[in-house]
Amino acid sequence: MITATPISAEAQIRQMSDEFSAAVRARDLDRMLAPYAKDAVIFDAAPAKLSIGLEQFRKHWQDFFDMLRGPIGHETRDMTVIADRDLAVAHLLSHTSGTQRNGAPLEMWLRLSLVFRKVDGQWLVTHEHSSVPF
Amino acid sequence: MITATPISAEAQIRQMSDEFSAAVRARDLDRMLAPYAKDAVIFDAAPAKLSIGLEQFRKHWQDFFDMLRGPIGHETRDMTVIADRDLAVAHLLSHTSGTQRNGAPLEMWLRLSLVFRKVDGQWLVTHEHSSVPF
Repeated sequence: MITATPISAEAQIRQMSDEFSAAVRARDLDRMLAPYAKDAVIFDAAPAKLSIGLEQFRKHWQDFFDMLRGPIGHETRDMTVIADRDLAVAHLLSHTSGTQRNGAPLEMWLRLSLVFRKVDGQWLVTHEHSSVPF
Repeated sequence: MITATPISAEAQIRQMSDEFSAAVRARDLDRMLAPYAKDAVIFDAAPAKLSIGLEQFRKHWQDFFDMLRGPIGHETRDMTVIADRDLAVAHLLSHTSGTQRNGAPLEMWLRLSLVFRKVDGQWLVTHEHSSVPF
């Protein structure tokens, strides 16, 4: 895509993060996973082996959505983005909220580290590490 | 530093990882922390706030060493390194082992994501995310 005023890599990655949050709120797994590289290596906060692939990552999110009824909140905080030519990283905190099927509220902070690589002019997530702080 | 045959960024970062493991085995905190940027943002596996600074990181390692007597093992596995011009990332698994003061063995797997930036020709760790898999 050629634009008259190309936006910076940092701005592109912040847009991707906003888009991910919007996709979570819409419970739209395809939209959430669209920017992930097929062979992304994921260190997930959900109970898992040492690392998981995209299929397992999708299942974790599906299970999470299945636990909740009604609207889901998803916001990020303290995001730092560093971009070089074809490699970029971000670290941030994410906050997810909703209501469990039994009516109890659910609130979750995650610490997230993300690695992006530019492939054919497009940033893809190649690594994600999420964990729950104590 | 000018060398006749400069080693690749990936090789430099793998050397840094080996050096970190050797420093853990030597219980040498100064040597362990030498390649960290002063303002590194650390998402730590030890009980902590959302993110910690270097001083707290050093204290976590000191507390860990104080729990153990005798030799400490520290190895890494499945390390992937991606380097661009002035930015590099690595993700890996680390295995730490030792003997607690009460004589019980201790074994710990960690998932690690690291971000490095080149400052004045030297790679520094600017972000680390470690977590314990389930």
